[in-house]
Amino acid sequence: MNADRDTRRLILKSARDLIYSRSYSEVGVAAICERAGIKKGSFYHFFPSKRDLTLAVIDEFFVELKQQIFEQAFATDLPPLQRLLRLVELGYLFQKEIAQTLGQTLGCPFGNLAAEMSTQDEPIRQKVERVFEMMEGRLAETLQAAEAHGDIKDVDIPATAQAMLAYIEGIMLMAKTRNDPQVIRQLGPAMAEIRIRKTV
Amino acid sequence: MNADRDTRRLILKSARDLIYSRSYSEVGVAAICERAGIKKGSFYHFFPSKRDLTLAVIDEFFVELKQQIFEQAFATDLPPLQRLLRLVELGYLFQKEIAQTLGQTLGCPFGNLAAEMSTQDEPIRQKVERVFEMMEGRLAETLQAAEAHGDIKDVDIPATAQAMLAYIEGIMLMAKTRNDPQVIRQLGPAMAEIRIRKTV
Repeated sequence: MNADRDTRRLILKSARDLIYSRSYSEVGVAAICERAGIKKGSFYHFFPSKRDLTLAVIDEFFVELKQQIFEQAFATDLPPLQRLLRLVELGYLFQKEIAQTLGQTLGCPFGNLAAEMSTQDEPIRQKVERVFEMMEGRLAETLQAAEAHGDIKDVDIPATAQAMLAYIEGIMLMAKTRNDPQVIRQLGPAMAEIRIRKTV
Repeated sequence: MNADRDTRRLILKSARDLIYSRSYSEVGVAAICERAGIKKGSFYHFFPSKRDLTLAVIDEFFVELKQQIFEQAFATDLPPLQRLLRLVELGYLFQKEIAQTLGQTLGCPFGNLAAEMSTQDEPIRQKVERVFEMMEGRLAETLQAAEAHGDIKDVDIPATAQAMLAYIEGIMLMAKTRNDPQVIRQLGPAMAEIRIRKTV
């Protein structure tokens, strides 16, 4: 049972690394098996298809980023709006570390999949949409705390959370396009100032 | 010679439509030839490779969007900051028409390619980076006009133009992920309020 769990984790990790650094379409089951050092028959024991594996990769990646970035970013030791700045800084550090290791800036794994796959695979599109909704939820909670704290008012919180996430995704995409994580540090802090006003 | 020019245009148009609605990797030369109704040998008479064709598609698409969106958006009949709002509205209308025709929101063709290909194909990454620089140039000119007009001050114009483009790209990606062009109309106008301040 433990060996099975280890093999499953190894497949997930191999797929995560390959798809994140290339793309969904460019990474086949054969390449994932080769990276994981397993046989194709073993792969299909764990995942019925590359799509099913990718849905699991998205879940795992969200857990990873929650632990590595979101929990620290949104910790309540700082005032709410400063947590947003910490989120941007942690996103920058995450991308910088990748760039130093791989020589490439990979951007947001969810945004990458959304851009490539939204028109081509409905379950993947829906899964990324749900991840974005969870991220918006964390941003919205932070904005509610900022409102309670008296830092913002008359703000449409759900729309502003969406706009902030859109900006983060846009900056991640720009950093990937320029292959330069510094873009995130330079442009990112403006995220905390985005407001969509309540329409009366 | 005219027949050659027509065939070349047909290949470009077929590749544009297929790659934009799917992705670079999912569209092969065979599919492009089938759509264009030509033989593979004919394809290679015009383009040495799918990558070379894609570089030409990016150029053509930029000309198309310049004519359909940018020229109208940035026309000087409106005050500068209102031109930015018109840009967002025209972007929304462009995506809405696509969604009504295809049932899918395709997002930004350059952003899609950047997300999929930046780590995988250096000439494509560089080409999209140059397109983004041209778009930032138009935004920067508009911000300069706004400054001359007295509408903004103490703004780092090149950085703000970059941030505005990042926000546009993020919103296009969100619209694609949700398969809903309304996202652009709802969140887009906040683009005109983004500012990166000059650091003294």
